[in-house]
Amino acid sequence: MPRPKKKPASAELSKTPTGITGFDEITRGGLPTGRPSLICGEAGAGKTLFSIEFIVRGATEFGEPGVIMAFEEKAEDLETNVSSLGFDLRKLQKDGLVYIDHVHIDRSEIEETGEYDLDGLFIRLGYAIDSIGAKRVVLDTIENLFGGLSNDGILRAELRRLFRWLKDKGVTTLITGEKGDRHLTRQGLEEYVSDCVILLQHRVQAQISTRLLRVVKYRGSLHGTNEYPFLIDEEGISVLPVTSLH
Amino acid sequence: MPRPKKKPASAELSKTPTGITGFDEITRGGLPTGRPSLICGEAGAGKTLFSIEFIVRGATEFGEPGVIMAFEEKAEDLETNVSSLGFDLRKLQKDGLVYIDHVHIDRSEIEETGEYDLDGLFIRLGYAIDSIGAKRVVLDTIENLFGGLSNDGILRAELRRLFRWLKDKGVTTLITGEKGDRHLTRQGLEEYVSDCVILLQHRVQAQISTRLLRVVKYRGSLHGTNEYPFLIDEEGISVLPVTSLH
Amino acid sequence: MPRPKKKPASAELSKTPTGITGFDEITRGGLPTGRPSLICGEAGAGKTLFSIEFIVRGATEFGEPGVIMAFEEKAEDLETNVSSLGFDLRKLQKDGLVYIDHVHIDRSEIEETGEYDLDGLFIRLGYAIDSIGAKRVVLDTIENLFGGLSNDGILRAELRRLFRWLKDKGVTTLITGEKGDRHLTRQGLEEYVSDCVILLQHRVQAQISTRLLRVVKYRGSLHGTNEYPFLIDEEGISVLPVTSLH
Amino acid sequence: MPRPKKKPASAELSKTPTGITGFDEITRGGLPTGRPSLICGEAGAGKTLFSIEFIVRGATEFGEPGVIMAFEEKAEDLETNVSSLGFDLRKLQKDGLVYIDHVHIDRSEIEETGEYDLDGLFIRLGYAIDSIGAKRVVLDTIENLFGGLSNDGILRAELRRLFRWLKDKGVTTLITGEKGDRHLTRQGLEEYVSDCVILLQHRVQAQISTRLLRVVKYRGSLHGTNEYPFLIDEEGISVLPVTSLH
Amino acid sequence: MPRPKKKPASAELSKTPTGITGFDEITRGGLPTGRPSLICGEAGAGKTLFSIEFIVRGATEFGEPGVIMAFEEKAEDLETNVSSLGFDLRKLQKDGLVYIDHVHIDRSEIEETGEYDLDGLFIRLGYAIDSIGAKRVVLDTIENLFGGLSNDGILRAELRRLFRWLKDKGVTTLITGEKGDRHLTRQGLEEYVSDCVILLQHRVQAQISTRLLRVVKYRGSLHGTNEYPFLIDEEGISVLPVTSLH
Amino acid sequence: MPRPKKKPASAELSKTPTGITGFDEITRGGLPTGRPSLICGEAGAGKTLFSIEFIVRGATEFGEPGVIMAFEEKAEDLETNVSSLGFDLRKLQKDGLVYIDHVHIDRSEIEETGEYDLDGLFIRLGYAIDSIGAKRVVLDTIENLFGGLSNDGILRAELRRLFRWLKDKGVTTLITGEKGDRHLTRQGLEEYVSDCVILLQHRVQAQISTRLLRVVKYRGSLHGTNEYPFLIDEEGISVLPVTSLH
Ligand SMILES: Nc1ncnc2c1ncn2[C@@H]1O[C@H](COP(=O)(O)OP(=O)(O)O)[C@@H](O)[C@H]1O
Ligand SMILES: Nc1ncnc2c1ncn2[C@@H]1O[C@H](COP(=O)(O)OP(=O)(O)O)[C@@H](O)[C@H]1O
Ligand SMILES: Nc1ncnc2c1ncn2[C@@H]1O[C@H](COP(=O)(O)OP(=O)(O)O)[C@@H](O)[C@H]1O
Ligand SMILES: Nc1ncnc2c1ncn2[C@@H]1O[C@H](COP(=O)(O)OP(=O)(O)O)[C@@H](O)[C@H]1O
Ligand SMILES: Nc1ncnc2c1ncn2[C@@H]1O[C@H](COP(=O)(O)OP(=O)(O)O)[C@@H](O)[C@H]1O
Ligand SMILES: Nc1ncnc2c1ncn2[C@@H]1O[C@H](COP(=O)(O)OP(=O)(O)O)[C@@H](O)[C@H]1O
Ligand SMILES: [Mg+2]
Ligand SMILES: [Mg+2]
Ligand SMILES: [Mg+2]
Ligand SMILES: [Mg+2]
Ligand SMILES: [Mg+2]
Ligand SMILES: [Mg+2]
Repeated sequence: MPRPKKKPASAELSKTPTGITGFDEITRGGLPTGRPSLICGEAGAGKTLFSIEFIVRGATEFGEPGVIMAFEEKAEDLETNVSSLGFDLRKLQKDGLVYIDHVHIDRSEIEETGEYDLDGLFIRLGYAIDSIGAKRVVLDTIENLFGGLSNDGILRAELRRLFRWLKDKGVTTLITGEKGDRHLTRQGLEEYVSDCVILLQHRVQAQISTRLLRVVKYRGSLHGTNEYPFLIDEEGISVLPVTSLH
Repeated sequence: MPRPKKKPASAELSKTPTGITGFDEITRGGLPTGRPSLICGEAGAGKTLFSIEFIVRGATEFGEPGVIMAFEEKAEDLETNVSSLGFDLRKLQKDGLVYIDHVHIDRSEIEETGEYDLDGLFIRLGYAIDSIGAKRVVLDTIENLFGGLSNDGILRAELRRLFRWLKDKGVTTLITGEKGDRHLTRQGLEEYVSDCVILLQHRVQAQISTRLLRVVKYRGSLHGTNEYPFLIDEEGISVLPVTSLH
Repeated sequence: MPRPKKKPASAELSKTPTGITGFDEITRGGLPTGRPSLICGEAGAGKTLFSIEFIVRGATEFGEPGVIMAFEEKAEDLETNVSSLGFDLRKLQKDGLVYIDHVHIDRSEIEETGEYDLDGLFIRLGYAIDSIGAKRVVLDTIENLFGGLSNDGILRAELRRLFRWLKDKGVTTLITGEKGDRHLTRQGLEEYVSDCVILLQHRVQAQISTRLLRVVKYRGSLHGTNEYPFLIDEEGISVLPVTSLH
Repeated sequence: MPRPKKKPASAELSKTPTGITGFDEITRGGLPTGRPSLICGEAGAGKTLFSIEFIVRGATEFGEPGVIMAFEEKAEDLETNVSSLGFDLRKLQKDGLVYIDHVHIDRSEIEETGEYDLDGLFIRLGYAIDSIGAKRVVLDTIENLFGGLSNDGILRAELRRLFRWLKDKGVTTLITGEKGDRHLTRQGLEEYVSDCVILLQHRVQAQISTRLLRVVKYRGSLHGTNEYPFLIDEEGISVLPVTSLH
Repeated sequence: MPRPKKKPASAELSKTPTGITGFDEITRGGLPTGRPSLICGEAGAGKTLFSIEFIVRGATEFGEPGVIMAFEEKAEDLETNVSSLGFDLRKLQKDGLVYIDHVHIDRSEIEETGEYDLDGLFIRLGYAIDSIGAKRVVLDTIENLFGGLSNDGILRAELRRLFRWLKDKGVTTLITGEKGDRHLTRQGLEEYVSDCVILLQHRVQAQISTRLLRVVKYRGSLHGTNEYPFLIDEEGISVLPVTSLH
Repeated sequence: MPRPKKKPASAELSKTPTGITGFDEITRGGLPTGRPSLICGEAGAGKTLFSIEFIVRGATEFGEPGVIMAFEEKAEDLETNVSSLGFDLRKLQKDGLVYIDHVHIDRSEIEETGEYDLDGLFIRLGYAIDSIGAKRVVLDTIENLFGGLSNDGILRAELRRLFRWLKDKGVTTLITGEKGDRHLTRQGLEEYVSDCVILLQHRVQAQISTRLLRVVKYRGSLHGTNEYPFLIDEEGISVLPVTSLH
């Protein structure tokens, strides 16, 4: 029985192209605009590289300034790490297209509550966004914020607070998360709270290693659901959308 | 030895069609009327989409108003997320056929007891149901209510309290639950307390992903017991009841 | 060397037929008379249905009245759930052949000790048994009694107390138990304390689901030890004793 | 280089035949005389049956009186359970060849220390042994004694105390133990402290169940090390020593 | 669409050759200069040997003095262990090319905080580095520093403090780490904080053992990503870069 | 590029033959002289037998007196257990070639600290070594010393203290350890602290059992790295060095 397609009044979801070869095709346009997405995987999976390429291509190819809030690596280290890919983070910063903030978390800041102070982060991040009129934000990695929280209820509430703040700011955000034992992430809640979840994997079979990307979840959008091989080479990341929609 | 089939005095279980292609066939009529059902699966499995389609089709095809109690997503986000499927939640709300209540749970509401206050929920939900004369209810997701409870005995008692309240209200309810490590749900008790349990899975084999639905349990009814492939496309969810009864 | 078969003075174990097609054949007569048996499996495995059929057939085919002590489901719900199978629980209750007691356990009853008060249960169950002269008893499910107990030694002592009380009452009992992670039951002790243990499984292979029954243990009796497929259809449960004894 | 076989002064290990078909062949004579052995396996594996047959055959075929200390089952239940095998425990008790002591452990006896009082057990067991001049002892099951102990060091010390007491008494003992998650026994220490360890398994493959026995360890003796199928039928246990020594 | 390769202003990552056959080819030049790398694997995987060869070849083939901070083995033991490989640690120490500091951690130093005092380590290590003008440093093993820390947030902060100190010193460091249950390392955080992670494995299949090396992660550099077999023989370690880049 | 083999000044590692057929071939000479080695495996793997044969052959074939510190078995039991192998421990003790000390650990000695007092052990062991001028020592098993310690940092420090004491004494030591869940040993640290680690396994496949030995780690020495089958028969242990070096 054919159902007449009604034209809905509500706005459809709009998307922000990452500029990463293949990925925008699989997702039919990129990441959800103005919403936070999660990219997770093991150490070396390519989370940081994907995030930086999202910011760099945003700045250079789509004219959207971006903020990188890095908890693990310093600005200079990030610059060095991607320079061989032809990404000139230093210049982009000078041109006001990228803002890198390396947040240094001290033992003492965790010791009491087991988590980093979110309100402080909001002030700092708000300042960074406003200063360059950022449309894109990267937080690398989320474990630095909540690593010591063990109560699931509270963790969920705090995750939602962070995600809501980012939505309210209207920025398209990419948050990186470390792989957990049996869940996508270490604490196993982030993937439920997020609007869009990407999993990067590094599979070793018969001694040969393959990198694979999968869009685990994308609220409000059709997308390719298979595992797509991807490469990291001198040009950055390229995903092979072998079959882009199943 | 053939047993004479007695005609029982007690009422047989009545069912509420979901309107979701294929599903009503597998369950021989839909969800159990006036009882709470559980739908569980990993992030991105399709729990929220299934629930909303159950409400939307109830309102548009069966004239049954419905309440969506959303703990993760705001009304506007839900509207946006399903607009591409031709579901106009905004209009349905205006027409008094759907009532969306986004419950915002704060850290402080969890901090003391590890759970959200059920009595407050009952008042709020009761008001929503009465205001539109709802016959269908969705709670998305149950983890928001009991995420921090660790004592199995108490959790079971509270689950039963929630389920009994819903039964007393006479509404056909669909509750979503996140996948656990080794049980269907995170706390592994919901599936025992529920009358009807549906599992959505996302299986990836040889890099190809397939969505599968299984009716794990349906008290009081015959139903298909296999895993049925299902699709999410521009029309919403459609289950392929390859063999509808085994 | 042939051993002369002595005729023992002690009474051989007597058995109570369940009336469930195939099962009495596998067990060479049914459940151990006057002893408690355990039936375990995941949600939807068929534990409750098996138990009710044991009571219904006892009342209708063998003239043995039976008590159902239900912790999860109310009497009306149970009635509805089995009415399509031609089981008229309402009439059986009216005829004094079945007594259903729905025990409603409140949060407050668990909060202090983590377990339900056994002595209260004994009084209530004793009353139910005496009032109809019951020969069969069902407790559905055991987790409701001890769900919050964590000390193995105490749990074992309490399990034994419950089982002894039932033995002293002389009733043939069937207790349902939920599947645990790595043991047959959630706490992994019930199967050791019980005289007879039945496992119901729901195996899904290549998307096809099969129901299987296995007699894990039967103190004092020879029995089929394989996994036997079983069906739930309009007539209730039927086990296929493909090879009834190995 | 051939090594001259010296004749040692120390006594070789002597053995006590169990009388169980096949087992004495695999172990080249039975259990180690005057030492405690452990028999472990899941519920229904056959631990209790093996132990009782060891006592019954000891009394009837080898003229060795035996004590059964049962923590789970009462004397009458044990009698009933083995009567179909032609074992007349009642008569053997009357003839002073078997002594059955059912130890009833109460919740209160565990509540404080998490373990049963060993010294009380020694007095009781000592009395039983002396009263019939027992040469064989069965303790069924060890979990009843130490189920609530969680410190490995203390558990090991107590296990050793029990085993030493039994050795000092000079009785050939068989202790049953429940299967643990990842170790042979629940606490995973008993198998290291014991002189002889037998594992009974119930393997289900392709729905067919097979019983298997393996001598995991036998200090001081050569023995068959494979898994041997065994049967439980109207004659008791018979092990098939397909290849008795590897 | 071809992207014009911009010449970045930021310095590219420079590398320090290990001198270990095959490894420098896989990593296109060796370890990241002035940064800390992590080498992990089970007991006997070759972590210590790899580290020492890195120091010895640095001193003898590249004129870079190196410090070995050993928590497990004493200087003399290390000397003995590698002498058969033609590595003369004693002479290298005398020539001021290698400095071995065996740090002896006492129970009392751990007892209070569960970790070794980092500030003390910095002083001691700083002295060692300065005294020979070291360019390379080995810490064997990291578990000795943080073995007793259980809070993830604090552990991460301390790891970062250690890594930052080493980066500030400008030395190329190799830190060894023990294999964890489900993560690369015991605490499962080191691999995320490190710039370069090497995994050594010892795989036993069909009774034959093979040693395998994999570069799990290398921030800022292209590298071979497969598992490469390696040998330990009279010449030290040699990796077989069967296919050096995938 | 051929590297000139330098003659190192430091002494090469010297070895102590065990006299166990095949093992000295695989290890190119036996255990590391004057260092502690670890032998681990499940109950019945052969740890105690291997250790005693190491002592007996040391005394009879290489003129090296040896001490056996036994925590589980008494001297007489050990004597009985190996007498069928032609090992006359009683005579060797009388001849001053072997010293057996059975350490009886009481519950009270563990109760407070969770570990046995090391200093007391050193005095006792020192006395034993000196009294016969022992060159070889066996400790059976290490779990008796540290079974109740749960802090990894402290355990590691204490293990190192024990190992250092033994090294200072100059004795070639073999310590037995019980198999852990996911690590070689129960606490998973011993294998990292030891200089030489041997794993004994009992693999059961298709009901046939095979004993296998693997040298997991041998600091400072080339050795066979595969799994080698071994037998326990009337002559003791014989390892089949099918391919002695890979
Ligand atoms: N508007 C849409 N159009 C097409 N597919 C959608 C749409 N919304 C969601 N999906 C698909 O459905 C999946 C499940 O979404 P959702 O119901 O939110 O999952 P869950 O609630 O189980 O986490 C998404 O990951 C996406 O693949
Ligand atoms: N009236 C009925 N008619 C047919 N099948 C039924 C009926 N009631 C239950 N079933 C089937 O039996 C399954 C098991 O039900 P139940 O005994 O309640 O499981 P459990 O107690 O093990 O959780 C249900 O999931 C359904 O598939
Ligand atoms: N009298 C009997 N005749 C035949 N088989 C029996 C008899 N008693 C027990 N069995 C079989 O032996 C199995 C094991 O019983 P039991 O020794 O009590 O197991 P365990 O003590 O290991 O839990 C039972 O499950 C049943 O299959
Ligand atoms: N005297 C003996 N003759 C032949 N085999 C023996 C003798 N003593 C022990 N064994 C065999 O060696 C096995 C291992 O014994 P043991 O060294 O005590 O193991 P572990 O110390 O690893 O627990 C025993 O289970 C048995 O199979
Ligand atoms: N500049 C680069 N050129 C080529 N490959 C790189 C470069 N930087 C990183 N890589 C590759 O990408 C991998 C992933 O890096 P990264 O994004 O830091 O991982 P993650 O953040 O997931 O831990 C590295 O291990 C390396 O293989
Ligand atoms: N001098 C040597 N000659 C040959 N092989 C050696 C030598 N020293 C160590 N090995 C081999 O290298 C392995 C790994 O040693 P090591 O680096 O100490 O491991 P790890 O530090 O990972 O525990 C040893 O088990 C042994 O097989
Ligand atoms: Mg990263
Ligand atoms: Mg959802
Ligand atoms: Mg049920
Ligand atoms: Mg038993
Ligand atoms: Mg090492
Ligand atoms: Mg031993």
